[in-house]
Amino acid sequence: MESEVSELLHGIVAPSEAWRGKARQHLDTLTKPLGSLGRLEDMAAQVAAIRGERMGEPVRKAIFVFAADHGVTASGVSAYPREVTVQMVHNILAGGAGISVLTQQHDVALHVVDIGVDTDFGTGVGMAPSLLHHKVARGTRNLLHEPAMSREEVLAALRVGYRLASEAAAEGCNLIATGEMGIGNTTAASAITCALTGVDAARATGRGTGANSATYANKVRVVEEAVAKHCPSPAAIAPFEILRRLGGLEIAAMAGVVLAAARHRMVMVLDGFIATAAAAVAVGIAPDALGYCIAGHCSEEPGHSILLDYLGLAPVLSLGMRLGEGTGAVLAMPIIESALALYLRMATFTSAGISGATP
Amino acid sequence: MESEVSELLHGIVAPSEAWRGKARQHLDTLTKPLGSLGRLEDMAAQVAAIRGERMGEPVRKAIFVFAADHGVTASGVSAYPREVTVQMVHNILAGGAGISVLTQQHDVALHVVDIGVDTDFGTGVGMAPSLLHHKVARGTRNLLHEPAMSREEVLAALRVGYRLASEAAAEGCNLIATGEMGIGNTTAASAITCALTGVDAARATGRGTGANSATYANKVRVVEEAVAKHCPSPAAIAPFEILRRLGGLEIAAMAGVVLAAARHRMVMVLDGFIATAAAAVAVGIAPDALGYCIAGHCSEEPGHSILLDYLGLAPVLSLGMRLGEGTGAVLAMPIIESALALYLRMATFTSAGISGATP
Repeated sequence: MESEVSELLHGIVAPSEAWRGKARQHLDTLTKPLGSLGRLEDMAAQVAAIRGERMGEPVRKAIFVFAADHGVTASGVSAYPREVTVQMVHNILAGGAGISVLTQQHDVALHVVDIGVDTDFGTGVGMAPSLLHHKVARGTRNLLHEPAMSREEVLAALRVGYRLASEAAAEGCNLIATGEMGIGNTTAASAITCALTGVDAARATGRGTGANSATYANKVRVVEEAVAKHCPSPAAIAPFEILRRLGGLEIAAMAGVVLAAARHRMVMVLDGFIATAAAAVAVGIAPDALGYCIAGHCSEEPGHSILLDYLGLAPVLSLGMRLGEGTGAVLAMPIIESALALYLRMATFTSAGISGATP
Repeated sequence: MESEVSELLHGIVAPSEAWRGKARQHLDTLTKPLGSLGRLEDMAAQVAAIRGERMGEPVRKAIFVFAADHGVTASGVSAYPREVTVQMVHNILAGGAGISVLTQQHDVALHVVDIGVDTDFGTGVGMAPSLLHHKVARGTRNLLHEPAMSREEVLAALRVGYRLASEAAAEGCNLIATGEMGIGNTTAASAITCALTGVDAARATGRGTGANSATYANKVRVVEEAVAKHCPSPAAIAPFEILRRLGGLEIAAMAGVVLAAARHRMVMVLDGFIATAAAAVAVGIAPDALGYCIAGHCSEEPGHSILLDYLGLAPVLSLGMRLGEGTGAVLAMPIIESALALYLRMATFTSAGISGATP
């Protein structure tokens, strides 16, 4: 199976430790107490390791929001009805969604992609931004009863994400994020989390968009049964297969973006639970992709911190958000840009003629 | 003593709970799961409580960075020599300091104020921004041996901060922050923290700009002795007196800004340890000022989280920074602006025609 994704792994190497070291040295010459920019210094060094000699190029930001439906909604896992996926795609395109507002505010190019919504959008939907039509299927199958996707569907969705992100890179994008819209997709992300990390369904499952107690109890049961059915011995199952059996089309597409970000040395900002589940799968397929990822925030969904720990990522923000759409990733972008600006534009002790510290 | 500050307390009332309630109701109509914007919803509601019917006015941001010297540097409490205060003022004005870079990036008007630097800057120092000359004294006295300031000096510094912030409000500023530059000022802030909260010197004292072990041990001793000498029974000493005996001119000026922010209903963003010590004194003088404050970040300085807990404030960012200058406050501003933008511009379920959640 992995051979089918080999084209997507081509050319992925870890960020440059040599550049990270050079960046650390430069940070220590800037007019500030040593280490006093804290996590911003780690971010600047990571970005230097990713971008190397292109560190000084202007930041260009983009986000791809993938929308898809989930067969598992038939099993009553969500507070919202399935048609909300379609309605929210229209809302995002019309500028009324959280991600619409934040991308405008922070000058992030917003691309909305139908990768698997259970409707016929027709053409000409949405004026600014327009909808990108890359529907692979009208939603997944119900992962409670059968694998969510076929091999062909997973590969198609991965390739869409990979291709769109590669095109963005060719157009100069160097700070990229993914977001998603898909009623039912926290159930898929929880199942993936269990399969990848081995934690119990109850720990990896949250209330999603706000499930009540009965819906939540049912959701935990669905995740538990789906994992037991499709991934009875997690360590033995390849990440691609976990994605195929338990994932979603938007999750596969987001994983494709992560792979392309690593291939084209873009800084990859992860959003919340679903986007991080996609990144965890991508990193399972191509471990060197991890070094390109920055966790934008930590969501309230309990599975998210499990995945962040699993990946060894510390989130930039912890604001108790759980909206999805890429909102947490975009909100972290000005912080990442600040880290970069400080690195590039602060004076050094020598250039500013400032006395050093007592050793 | 408090009567002398009564002019600075005039007209300060708590933010409007009626507006906060209205804002909460509005947030619940927006196209997102209930409460899914987490802390951003709390911020939006707080800003609504502060700004009321002016909620929709464009955000205008400013920061006042107050520079001053500290007599206690003679007692060997800092890793850097005293002349760094002057040198860093020039660096800030020249655009090479952390706060210079961040204010440019985030479109924040930067005002640098000499409130007590031990030098004669002369006129015409700094081109953009120019230095504001409001020197009250050439630094404080050594708080280890005598009160840091006279009553007249404290009042003068408080009034400078109050007046500058009031002028900013008159010019349309509605999101304001303070920063500081002053070698030795973490010692003053630690002493204030002990006096206000009753914690031990060892807990409230950190390494500041990077004191080595010997300097740090000495710093703890200085804080301990100063508090024992000037504020032997903390609860019995008025905040104004704590400020006078243990503070600094920049700390007094920053406290003045907090009072003016409350008076003119501006959102007041706190930076790190020193700025929060100033806010804690201001809130001690005028408790209703607290509702105008947002903690921009939590610094690595151990006294900062003690003060944030004392004030009941949760920081927006926790990035391990300890640079001062207002950097943590400015870095939080795009997040606060995002909270406001989401509140003002997201669609409602009704306007977007989106199905609601299952109750």
